[in-house]
Order: sequence, then structure tokens, then C-alpha cells
Amino acid sequence: MSTQLLRAVNIMVSRDGIGAGENQRLDQPFGDGLDPAVLFSWAGATASWPNRTEPGGSRGLDDYFTRDWNRNIGAEIMGRNKFTPYRGPWEDHPEWQGWWGDEPPFRTPVFVMTHHLRPPLTLSDTTFHFIDADPATVLSRAREAAQGKDVRLGGGVTTIREFLEADLVDTLHVAVSPVEAGHGIRLWDSPEDLLDRFHLDVVPSPSGVTHHLFWRR
Amino acid sequence: MSTQLLRAVNIMVSRDGIGAGENQRLDQPFGDGLDPAVLFSWAGATASWPNRTEPGGSRGLDDYFTRDWNRNIGAEIMGRNKFTPYRGPWEDHPEWQGWWGDEPPFRTPVFVMTHHLRPPLTLSDTTFHFIDADPATVLSRAREAAQGKDVRLGGGVTTIREFLEADLVDTLHVAVSPVEAGHGIRLWDSPEDLLDRFHLDVVPSPSGVTHHLFWRR
Repeated sequence: MSTQLLRAVNIMVSRDGIGAGENQRLDQPFGDGLDPAVLFSWAGATASWPNRTEPGGSRGLDDYFTRDWNRNIGAEIMGRNKFTPYRGPWEDHPEWQGWWGDEPPFRTPVFVMTHHLRPPLTLSDTTFHFIDADPATVLSRAREAAQGKDVRLGGGVTTIREFLEADLVDTLHVAVSPVEAGHGIRLWDSPEDLLDRFHLDVVPSPSGVTHHLFWRR
Repeated sequence: MSTQLLRAVNIMVSRDGIGAGENQRLDQPFGDGLDPAVLFSWAGATASWPNRTEPGGSRGLDDYFTRDWNRNIGAEIMGRNKFTPYRGPWEDHPEWQGWWGDEPPFRTPVFVMTHHLRPPLTLSDTTFHFIDADPATVLSRAREAAQGKDVRLGGGVTTIREFLEADLVDTLHVAVSPVEAGHGIRLWDSPEDLLDRFHLDVVPSPSGVTHHLFWRR
């Protein structure tokens, strides 16, 4: 039995299961029709939010989720569309180095799934590896890089779906915000879609989001 | 501003605020009238419970609390009555080395508050220091030993009360079980006693306990 879990942590969707709008681009990283500030506000209010720039913040329920983000994580897997708003060959946007500046918060190897290969990119403590492979192969590479620690499945929701379909996800935390997106890129039709394979705790937070905690049966 | 928090984690009480019965002794570590199995069952069912001896366990809400127990902790403070069921001079029970066997789960310095001094006791990665001082002085010693990490306030409830009265607690997590103890050693008359100084999230768990999460205003 592997004790290295694949954990999707702090995945944020609307009440109707949408994680991003369509037509994602540089000035609208989450695309049209869905304001990411609404999805992220619960996390941004916590003391442990990695992007926090001033002291303070809440240390109640929501903070358990933001501070769990990097606990015992040795590598991350993300889809190409989380790394960049651009599509097509990397050569068209040679200066793009991800959304996170010179010190990305990951501080581990990160495996970016893409059909367009390129050499690894190291920024401070984070190295991005670009990999064109199926989910099981990517997970195998990430587990090796994680050196005994867990692997975080970082999203977006399309990538989460691929790993769920391949039955590779061990735990999944989804924060559902009380907004309707209507259309966009969808994680699920309903959380109940996963109940054949997962236990589920549904935990309403005083902040207004409802945390959905899935773990493998 | 100190960024080393004093955190009381996984404190377990009955619905009427009792953390232990009276007349604690070797064969009844929690004293009379309160079955510790009832208070601890939610934690024992989780995957991250430190005393777990077989694989499995839940990874839902309750597991966030058990796995938070040692996150970023560099030292623990406990009352003498958590360390031993015996009272009076240590010389009367020279073989007593705590409840936890040869490998205590703490793996940090532990400061045991007692009027009876004795030399430090090292068991595997844990060293117990016995200290006769007021809460502020004990916390100062523990912070120094924690080398920048947080300090856990380990209980029992009498010790928690002393640190609350001295206004030294930064965060407090209390798991309230749905049982009535009637009498015993009391953490509070009501969680509302603390609301003048703390924010509070009240989070019912599917397991039946209600997590109370306090953080300093």
C-alpha cells in the first residue's frame, strides 16, 4: 500500500460546480462570468493564506484548510491552464514564467501537464517540470519526486476530473461558494457523483462557503 | 509582535464542560464519572490519530484536527496531572516515566508544571523538563525551547484555565462531546465565557462532537 496520498486541496467552485469561466486570458485569469475574488475570499481572510501580505487574519475553521495546503506535500501536479493563460507553443510567449513571480509558493517540484514540452524552469525553491503523459504516469513521476511525502493535485478543475476519472485521487477538498456561475468549466454536476467511491463530510463554514471533504472508501 | 503562538489543541470536554473526573488514579486516569473513551472516540477514528496502530481511519473534518496536533509545534506545556496519576514527591514513585512508554508522541521539549522539581527526563525524541513557575515564565521558557515554532498547551483543563486567566492563549480548539459528566474538573461554565477576548467558530462534526475554535480578538 502506498502511503503517499494524492490530495486535491482548496479547490474552489461555485454552487453549481464551476471552477473557472470560459475564455481565460491574461487580464481575466479565471475567464468570463466568474469573479475569482468571490471564490477566494474565504481563503484570503485567513491567517495562513500564502499570499497574505499583512499580519492578522482569522484562525477559525477556514484557516485549517489554508494551512493544510502545504502540510506534508512533496510535489504538485497542475494542468497547463493553471500555469499560463496562453495556449499553443511556448515559443510564442518566451517570457512567461507562471503567475507567481520570482518566489512561487510551491517550494517543491511542480509537474505541469502539457502537450508542448520545454526544459524545466527553476524559480527560487520551485522547479516546474513540463510533462506530456497520462495521469498515472504523471503521478508516478510526482511521487518519486516527492520523496515519501504526499502529492498535491493543484487543479484546475479539468485536471481534477482527469485524475478522478483515472481513480487516482485519495482525498479531495472542495470549497463551494454561495454563488451561481451559470456556465464555465465544471468540476461536477453534483458532489453526489463521487459518493460511489468516496466518503463525504459536508461542513458549512461561518464564512459562507461549504467545505466538501472526500476521502476514498 | 511574537509570531510564536500558544495553541491549545484537541482539548476534549463533555457538553457540560468537564475534561476529567475527580479522583484520578493509575487505573482510572480520567478519574470517576467520565469515560475517556467517549471523549476520545472521534479522534481515535481518524487516520492521523498518533496512537493509531492499524491503517485506515477517516480523512474528513475530524482528521484536520488530529493532524493539526503537531503542525509547527516546537514545545509542549502540560500540567503535572497530565504527566502522572500520582501526587506528592516524585521519590514516592521513582519508576514513573509518564503514560506514553519509551517513545512519547511529543518529540519536542515538554514542560511539566509542578511544585516538585526533578532532573529532566529524556525518552527517545522527547525531553520532559519539570518547572515550578507561573504561566508567563513557563511560556517564556517553552518559547525559547521551541526555536521559533509554536508552543502547544497540552492540558489538562486546570492548566488551560490558568493560562486563559493569565491571557496567554492565542488559539484554543475544544472538542465538545455529546455527553453529560455532571461533575468533575471543569474547563468552563460555557464557551461564551471566552467571547470577550476570542472569536469563536462553532463547527458540528458528522461524528457527533462539536468543534469550538477560538482565536484571539
